[in-house]
Amino acid sequence: MSIDLEALYIDLHRHPELSFQETRTAGVITRALTALGLEYVEGLGTTGVATSITGTATDDGPVVWLRADMDGLPVAEQTGLAYASTARGIDPAGTDVPVMHACGHDMHVTALLGALERLAATRDEWSGTVVAVFQPAEEYGAGAQAMIADGVLDRFPKPDIVLGQHLTPLPAGTIGVRPGTQMAASDGLTVRLLGRGGHGSRPHATIDPVVMAAATVMRLQTVVSREIDPREMAVVTVGSIHAGLKNNIIPAEAKLELSLRYPDDEARADVLARVERIVRAEAAASGAEEEPVITTDHSLPPTINDHEATARLSAAWERAFGEGTVVDPGMFTGSEDVSWFAREAGVPLVYWFWGGLDPQQFADAVARGTVNEDIPTNHSPFFAPILHPTIERGVDALVVAAREFLG
Amino acid sequence: MSIDLEALYIDLHRHPELSFQETRTAGVITRALTALGLEYVEGLGTTGVATSITGTATDDGPVVWLRADMDGLPVAEQTGLAYASTARGIDPAGTDVPVMHACGHDMHVTALLGALERLAATRDEWSGTVVAVFQPAEEYGAGAQAMIADGVLDRFPKPDIVLGQHLTPLPAGTIGVRPGTQMAASDGLTVRLLGRGGHGSRPHATIDPVVMAAATVMRLQTVVSREIDPREMAVVTVGSIHAGLKNNIIPAEAKLELSLRYPDDEARADVLARVERIVRAEAAASGAEEEPVITTDHSLPPTINDHEATARLSAAWERAFGEGTVVDPGMFTGSEDVSWFAREAGVPLVYWFWGGLDPQQFADAVARGTVNEDIPTNHSPFFAPILHPTIERGVDALVVAAREFLG
Amino acid sequence: MSIDLEALYIDLHRHPELSFQETRTAGVITRALTALGLEYVEGLGTTGVATSITGTATDDGPVVWLRADMDGLPVAEQTGLAYASTARGIDPAGTDVPVMHACGHDMHVTALLGALERLAATRDEWSGTVVAVFQPAEEYGAGAQAMIADGVLDRFPKPDIVLGQHLTPLPAGTIGVRPGTQMAASDGLTVRLLGRGGHGSRPHATIDPVVMAAATVMRLQTVVSREIDPREMAVVTVGSIHAGLKNNIIPAEAKLELSLRYPDDEARADVLARVERIVRAEAAASGAEEEPVITTDHSLPPTINDHEATARLSAAWERAFGEGTVVDPGMFTGSEDVSWFAREAGVPLVYWFWGGLDPQQFADAVARGTVNEDIPTNHSPFFAPILHPTIERGVDALVVAAREFLG
Amino acid sequence: MSIDLEALYIDLHRHPELSFQETRTAGVITRALTALGLEYVEGLGTTGVATSITGTATDDGPVVWLRADMDGLPVAEQTGLAYASTARGIDPAGTDVPVMHACGHDMHVTALLGALERLAATRDEWSGTVVAVFQPAEEYGAGAQAMIADGVLDRFPKPDIVLGQHLTPLPAGTIGVRPGTQMAASDGLTVRLLGRGGHGSRPHATIDPVVMAAATVMRLQTVVSREIDPREMAVVTVGSIHAGLKNNIIPAEAKLELSLRYPDDEARADVLARVERIVRAEAAASGAEEEPVITTDHSLPPTINDHEATARLSAAWERAFGEGTVVDPGMFTGSEDVSWFAREAGVPLVYWFWGGLDPQQFADAVARGTVNEDIPTNHSPFFAPILHPTIERGVDALVVAAREFLG
Repeated sequence: MSIDLEALYIDLHRHPELSFQETRTAGVITRALTALGLEYVEGLGTTGVATSITGTATDDGPVVWLRADMDGLPVAEQTGLAYASTARGIDPAGTDVPVMHACGHDMHVTALLGALERLAATRDEWSGTVVAVFQPAEEYGAGAQAMIADGVLDRFPKPDIVLGQHLTPLPAGTIGVRPGTQMAASDGLTVRLLGRGGHGSRPHATIDPVVMAAATVMRLQTVVSREIDPREMAVVTVGSIHAGLKNNIIPAEAKLELSLRYPDDEARADVLARVERIVRAEAAASGAEEEPVITTDHSLPPTINDHEATARLSAAWERAFGEGTVVDPGMFTGSEDVSWFAREAGVPLVYWFWGGLDPQQFADAVARGTVNEDIPTNHSPFFAPILHPTIERGVDALVVAAREFLG
Repeated sequence: MSIDLEALYIDLHRHPELSFQETRTAGVITRALTALGLEYVEGLGTTGVATSITGTATDDGPVVWLRADMDGLPVAEQTGLAYASTARGIDPAGTDVPVMHACGHDMHVTALLGALERLAATRDEWSGTVVAVFQPAEEYGAGAQAMIADGVLDRFPKPDIVLGQHLTPLPAGTIGVRPGTQMAASDGLTVRLLGRGGHGSRPHATIDPVVMAAATVMRLQTVVSREIDPREMAVVTVGSIHAGLKNNIIPAEAKLELSLRYPDDEARADVLARVERIVRAEAAASGAEEEPVITTDHSLPPTINDHEATARLSAAWERAFGEGTVVDPGMFTGSEDVSWFAREAGVPLVYWFWGGLDPQQFADAVARGTVNEDIPTNHSPFFAPILHPTIERGVDALVVAAREFLG
Repeated sequence: MSIDLEALYIDLHRHPELSFQETRTAGVITRALTALGLEYVEGLGTTGVATSITGTATDDGPVVWLRADMDGLPVAEQTGLAYASTARGIDPAGTDVPVMHACGHDMHVTALLGALERLAATRDEWSGTVVAVFQPAEEYGAGAQAMIADGVLDRFPKPDIVLGQHLTPLPAGTIGVRPGTQMAASDGLTVRLLGRGGHGSRPHATIDPVVMAAATVMRLQTVVSREIDPREMAVVTVGSIHAGLKNNIIPAEAKLELSLRYPDDEARADVLARVERIVRAEAAASGAEEEPVITTDHSLPPTINDHEATARLSAAWERAFGEGTVVDPGMFTGSEDVSWFAREAGVPLVYWFWGGLDPQQFADAVARGTVNEDIPTNHSPFFAPILHPTIERGVDALVVAAREFLG
Repeated sequence: MSIDLEALYIDLHRHPELSFQETRTAGVITRALTALGLEYVEGLGTTGVATSITGTATDDGPVVWLRADMDGLPVAEQTGLAYASTARGIDPAGTDVPVMHACGHDMHVTALLGALERLAATRDEWSGTVVAVFQPAEEYGAGAQAMIADGVLDRFPKPDIVLGQHLTPLPAGTIGVRPGTQMAASDGLTVRLLGRGGHGSRPHATIDPVVMAAATVMRLQTVVSREIDPREMAVVTVGSIHAGLKNNIIPAEAKLELSLRYPDDEARADVLARVERIVRAEAAASGAEEEPVITTDHSLPPTINDHEATARLSAAWERAFGEGTVVDPGMFTGSEDVSWFAREAGVPLVYWFWGGLDPQQFADAVARGTVNEDIPTNHSPFFAPILHPTIERGVDALVVAAREFLG
């Protein structure tokens, strides 16, 4: 019996779930594993699933971990696809929000299940052990650590290498990978700015947190524009700002949520210190009577690809898929928590991108010079990979990569 | 039978309701009117109630309207009073919020019911008609117009004068009133700033509405600081700012809610034009592809006290309460919709303030020079009038005022 | 022999001098005094001149001081008048600048000389002593104190009252005066913001004082927009900002010059504290390694008119010039150092405005609703009083006022 | 006879001249060329000098241009060196400013003269022609074009390759060079923001250009922080801001000088459009009645090193100076006008850096992690190269490079 990967993908796409709530997704995965005759552990780090397959070609061999993440995003899908999501969920603040697989994790799960089917079917051809990890809550940067806290590294053979892949708007068929820093380190901060509320007509009796927040947002721009070497990558995004219930009541506080990005741990410490300096000084400029409260919601390490392993895989893929199929996509400013598995185990990591974009659409946008405007990126409500050959290339990329390291 | 006004006040205070949702409050009022043997019309402008009493001293006399507003505010009470509110409500955005009588409308209702009892008991002493109007949704600036749209001016005798009063942190016992502009005109605006969303790590592929909003808030400060004659009153408050769900998703839009204040209709047109100019220019500075959407949520006229009627009332109160009890509180920057009744009918208005503050607390704060810091104002979560003589003075002020004009 | 006041005015207008450099102006004054047969002291507070006339009607009488200021401004005249200034001067920074009598001090001197001629000619009609003070450097807020430091109060009879007047764009013929605060208190501050310079292409190696200055200016707007009661007057103007020599060198510091205005001494202390708080916090937000340096360049008291004396003068002028010629011009946000003479002597002050605007021009602007746009105010390069009846009314206003108090 | 290069350098360092005023410097150069027996053309592009030497080994050979720039900067030297500059000059605005060789052009001239002496002395060993170009006004980005406009490319043999070098705070002895973009493209803009002036106490009658400028500076930060791919280099520096003469006069306009940097011509067009969009929108936000005036003061192309020629030179230097002496310094965000010579002639360019920093000082700063803080960079008032082996290595680098291409 063979998994219908297209149907599986469409089902997952129609039913995205928010981070740490991927119960239906986990059910889809465990049913597929059962159909493949594989045992698994579920409920790892809330909703994570892991399984393993041992090759029988020889008695012994390396352990290769393959990881896919499972969660969707609070985005209202606007792709117009027949199988577009209309799902909703309750976010951590208790708000009812739309949910969409706007980052392609549905494709990640699909490809890993396809690869497991292939590897299981060919286990007499290879040696060693493949461990497949279906991880929750990558979008919160918290799922990998939750699975580790739940003992995934103890309950399965320790990896010799960790592999993972991410769907991206490269032309379908293309693999993008680079040695060294592949994705940025990232922190998610919440900043509570504490003022003093009052009536909207009597600002002088208040300490206005809306103005405090606005001044802080404007000043935070100067970290990147003035304080970081223009040749280095840093991002300071204020992704959300919330204060007040009504136009004529000045609220007592404002909340900012920040997403910070940097290439390495040194830059991380540097930018964090600058952000904190500005937040505190802007509160002082407002005459705030209480210090702002800064909390770290998540902290993601940089995703650094092992040089030697990356070179081996690049060569293997070029052999398998043809010359020119592997490109250097540059460093990505996005972040990942896949590194925690490799960091914790002290082993190398290779994390790559594979394309899901209609090559013709890409060529047209390049010709028009409108790639930034016309190609929906990850997290866009218009993010819509083509199904083929995206599914097949995702499966093959995992199988080729795993087999490169397995005996 | 006599109404227990203290108990009535405490009951209302414990059960505040949001604007246009004052159903329980209306029930309390109609039960009291029934107990007084008065007929009434309910459901006016959603939850408003009105009644009338005709004096029997002579066959004929003027019509005096007395108005009290009924609604609470989305504020979490922090007074620590035994009868503090723990109520919650659903605001127009569907959010569950705390509710508190932070503006004293519970005292307004209490005093008007007490005045009606007194006027009813003495109706053989006076001539003419008193119309009592219990109005919803003053906080939205919408209740007076809703009652007028529902025909309150047709279903009751037209006023010769409209009277109203507001609780305020003057020392209890004091009446504050001034001829001419007593309260500011006000508009409530909602501004939607339209950007383009995307991943928090790829700001260059977005048009960041959080930065657009922050720059707009900072620039709006210059209306008051640079563009209005320093000797004139104007307020531009951004009472709420909301954008985004998550630190690492740049949202597609931001919403600001503004409260604007001015002394007259000319200043209103002037400030509105300046605010619109800045909002549009800041969107342009961000490279927004869509114009901001500016909507007016409410628009309140200035509250202008008739000169002659105000002089008559001031004299009447001084006679009744003693010399020095009537003070000029200056113009208030807050706003009211009571004027619509008088504007629509084309008759004079007198609107005054009466004190609910413990006189000792006031004296102490004056001595320390900390009136702004220590005296909770209307809309503060700490707003807590003393019960006596506040209730009695509120009743008396209405009765004295009504009798001054009645035959 | 009679002074040709029109010719004198035109001569002064053609030859304006910067503050503390009014040597030619002092020469014109002393020549006129000599022609009038009056003795004088010159060089008071650098370039000031004072003289006195004693009435002979009786042996004794009060001492009335009349004060006129003498200095021009660094403004390039654009009136297009035949007698427009083309003068230049060297400002305290050593820069060569255009100079113009853009504040009407040429008219002040002219009127005072005209009044002296009249009073001298009629000295047998009155008793007491008139002291005329021609003061330098009013625009620096420093001339009155300089003359006091030079002993003017000791070298002339002490005043019983101090009188002064200022030309303003009221319609010619009109006197504007109010009891109480007539002009604001004011401070002039210089703020040096200390950063770290470097090459324009390497902002991360610098602490950019231009951004520090810009953020400070934006934040200073919030003092007036959020922190001062909207019904009270306050002004925070950054009148000059200077940093840098070249586009590609980030300078080491920026300099701001602030002009602050308030109605009284309490507001002064309050606003100064708020400004300092913001300046220091914005330097901290920039990560400045040195504290900003804030210096006070001048500090002017509020100009407060004595209630009783103002009422006497208003009545005297209405008698002399006709009903309706004296108006309440409201409080002016500008400031004056004339108060120092009265404060130091502990005597009352009356300081008034007289109009120099073509009444037709004023009527037209009122009709168009473009008074703010079309009427050049003091300090404008287009400030151009009409000569008649401005000169005559200025002379008469002084003579009537002096005679009201003299025996 | 041999040039004393150390004495020559110290003399030049003591007598820096502003751009297009390098008359004394040109005199030093022409005296040295005369001493070497070389003919020259002077006055090229105002103060430029050029000369040529033809090798005699064979009859024919390539033409190699060597270029050194000559001008100093308006910086007040603070090195404390015995030979520190105390020179002053008059800048284009007519202001008297300090002048310093803060960018090392004195060393450039010294090294090129030393190289010419060596090449002249050995002309029988090589073939072809060396053209040496001493260029004025590199700091204005205008000198190369001025020399070209004056015909330098017609009056000397056309280059087959253009070579140039720049002193930098790499450790002395080190050469830094990279193929491809070595230095950024750059534009210098002047922005005049037009408001309406008036008295500092009457902001409502003005359009405040100081606030307009501050808001513009703050908004310009968002170009780099939000609108450019975080992985790409862009700089938007406001190097100078000037408005106003006095604290209590609101000026009529403000002037900003911007330095912009980008890696290529596409980014240039993109950033320029964004800057213009913001400048215009911020003027609109202020209600400016006149459009801002944006002028381009200079425009420098990217400095792009020919790949093949750079590889040849790197190999030649490593052979000459030892392995490890040639490093990739990364792209510099600074800009140069040397490219115009190669662009105009349509030939390759190699432009490299050579170190002038005390290696021990560098090692110490690296150990402390304070390179950014402790190492004075070009344009710093503390920029102070050590004399040896800086001079020798600068001479050798030119000679080795020229000989590599000469026959």
